[in-house]
Amino acid sequence: MAALQNVGIVGGGQLALMMAEAASRIGLVVEVLAVHPDDPAARIVPRTTIGDPGDGAALRELARRCEVVTFDHEMVDPAVLRDLESEGFVLRPGARAMAVAVDKERQLEVFGRLGLPVPPTNVARSLDEVAAAIAAVGGTAVLKVATGGYDGRGVLLGATADSATEWFPDRPVLVQPEMDIDAEIAVQVVRGVDGQMATYPVVRTVQHNGMCAVVQVPSGLDPGIERAAVEMAMAIASEIDVVGVLAVEFFIVDGELLLNEIAARPHNSGHITIESTCVSQFENHLRAVAGHPLGSTELVVPAAAMVNVVGSSCGGVGYGPLPTDVAVHLYGKQPRPGRKLGHVTATSESVVDATERALRAARTLENGASTP
Amino acid sequence: MAALQNVGIVGGGQLALMMAEAASRIGLVVEVLAVHPDDPAARIVPRTTIGDPGDGAALRELARRCEVVTFDHEMVDPAVLRDLESEGFVLRPGARAMAVAVDKERQLEVFGRLGLPVPPTNVARSLDEVAAAIAAVGGTAVLKVATGGYDGRGVLLGATADSATEWFPDRPVLVQPEMDIDAEIAVQVVRGVDGQMATYPVVRTVQHNGMCAVVQVPSGLDPGIERAAVEMAMAIASEIDVVGVLAVEFFIVDGELLLNEIAARPHNSGHITIESTCVSQFENHLRAVAGHPLGSTELVVPAAAMVNVVGSSCGGVGYGPLPTDVAVHLYGKQPRPGRKLGHVTATSESVVDATERALRAARTLENGASTP
Repeated sequence: MAALQNVGIVGGGQLALMMAEAASRIGLVVEVLAVHPDDPAARIVPRTTIGDPGDGAALRELARRCEVVTFDHEMVDPAVLRDLESEGFVLRPGARAMAVAVDKERQLEVFGRLGLPVPPTNVARSLDEVAAAIAAVGGTAVLKVATGGYDGRGVLLGATADSATEWFPDRPVLVQPEMDIDAEIAVQVVRGVDGQMATYPVVRTVQHNGMCAVVQVPSGLDPGIERAAVEMAMAIASEIDVVGVLAVEFFIVDGELLLNEIAARPHNSGHITIESTCVSQFENHLRAVAGHPLGSTELVVPAAAMVNVVGSSCGGVGYGPLPTDVAVHLYGKQPRPGRKLGHVTATSESVVDATERALRAARTLENGASTP
Repeated sequence: MAALQNVGIVGGGQLALMMAEAASRIGLVVEVLAVHPDDPAARIVPRTTIGDPGDGAALRELARRCEVVTFDHEMVDPAVLRDLESEGFVLRPGARAMAVAVDKERQLEVFGRLGLPVPPTNVARSLDEVAAAIAAVGGTAVLKVATGGYDGRGVLLGATADSATEWFPDRPVLVQPEMDIDAEIAVQVVRGVDGQMATYPVVRTVQHNGMCAVVQVPSGLDPGIERAAVEMAMAIASEIDVVGVLAVEFFIVDGELLLNEIAARPHNSGHITIESTCVSQFENHLRAVAGHPLGSTELVVPAAAMVNVVGSSCGGVGYGPLPTDVAVHLYGKQPRPGRKLGHVTATSESVVDATERALRAARTLENGASTP
């Protein structure tokens, strides 16, 4: 099977941007379907079309121009993807994997089918069901929309029957008890068209406001836990027949792994692979969807830490001095409070040192405007 | 002094391509003046103009649109650069540094002024002078054109009076004795607008057909030799008042350093910095010319090796399987025998292992077309 050369990317966000950065180095040509001309990838990719990724016509046009279509996000309609596939267009991941990736309820079904451990979860379809589920777990709970949530949006922590009433989004909601979480980890698996898989080193993630804030590698956790997480991630990737990167997030509660959620694309928890491994999640995603051999996922530095750069209400980005001792990735977005504007990765002999440097660098960028 | 945001690059080759890859990550917007629309940088940079970099009008247009202009190559007219500077346009490196960079005879003058060691050299301006100089060093010599040579073009090895006659390019030629070279090394210095400098770890280079073929770090050479090379490189950077990266190449003959030549831009010997150091030569060149603080040049891996991917008469690029255990950089050029088409970098615990892997990967790419 010959490798493909033209890859269409649905979405023009930072994942598409970093895919585009990786693409040209391995001889691929990418086209991007972006919502706005100032989306991160739209600003640097000459072949950019502006359109609505939820719109079948725009997707079909992209698919027509490219040999394979892949995704920067999950804001797509699985029914449209099924139609495109039945018309003979090549989507990777395919419609079946995307249908799971866009819907946390279907993710729970997959985890259940594979007998994998999940937090106790009720799926509530009405406000009455939400209230009942919250009462059943003791009066406060964590609520998550089944579809369309990201970066802390679509999640309600410490939900009571009252706060849930204001928040309820009129679509299915996952209701989970509040848990004492020891740690969170993530694994990226990359899976080729032939089913071959490679897995990245397990990373430890630290969340802040529902957004991945710090990622560290090595995780420092028990190797048995790491092995179990990697095996579960590979089982899920095979089960949903994903092509490309699958990111799998776990909670560790009372020393046990619990599956949180998955994304069938490069993921914030894998940005650290750009500097810390031989071939990054972005290049490997493209290698997989274009039918190239997968690249080595081996760690090439002793330790690394990634910290997101997030817009603050008092600062900006690009005004202060650029940090000097980390790899800087700015996405070219207009600063807004709470918006992911970039990330930095520090590599070091130790995770502690890398984390300190990355945090310092991110804070410098975030507070740039107030620096003289 | 506020940092600049719009950088114009004269030339659309692989150096401009890798500058463009680095630029967006630190919030810079680049424009490229390329000769052909299929030049490496022209293919991926939306703001590309096609024009002749030797043409004052095209350069002036680029300078008018950008806050600062920098260079992918030395095929420019120093007189035009002086004019642009006197009109108030910002060139970095400036006209004075570029006048030295484009002319090996002026480089010799600078080395002499600083009292730095060089190979015995005669500058010959006519065929008679060339013949006399060859005779003076025993009948065979190495000839190098003072201006316009690159990648083995403009160099005649083992030159005799006869072969020099056929080859003589009708412009000044450097005549040097053939030497037994123990090793070649290179140093990249990056120098800011304020004169601050950072130096990359010394690399060992292996030439093949006049082209840099293999680069290794660490160099494995005596630390005293390394220190001396770094000090000479910094002295030259200050003397010619360069802004951006200055690459300085040395021979080691009988255990002594001899200056070979310099380039006032990112250089093939520094491609290895992308994977092996905190901030690459490309990003640091841009940081310097845009007035940002210089990034750390520290090594982040134990060892690395870079090997160029060169077009062979029997193969192509992009037909065979992509190598899996190195960082691949293809420049998107049409394969031609002897043309630099890309490079690969392997990182490892040892230089020997990294070099073996990089060589194997480069040969796989070069012979792609003949691989089943």
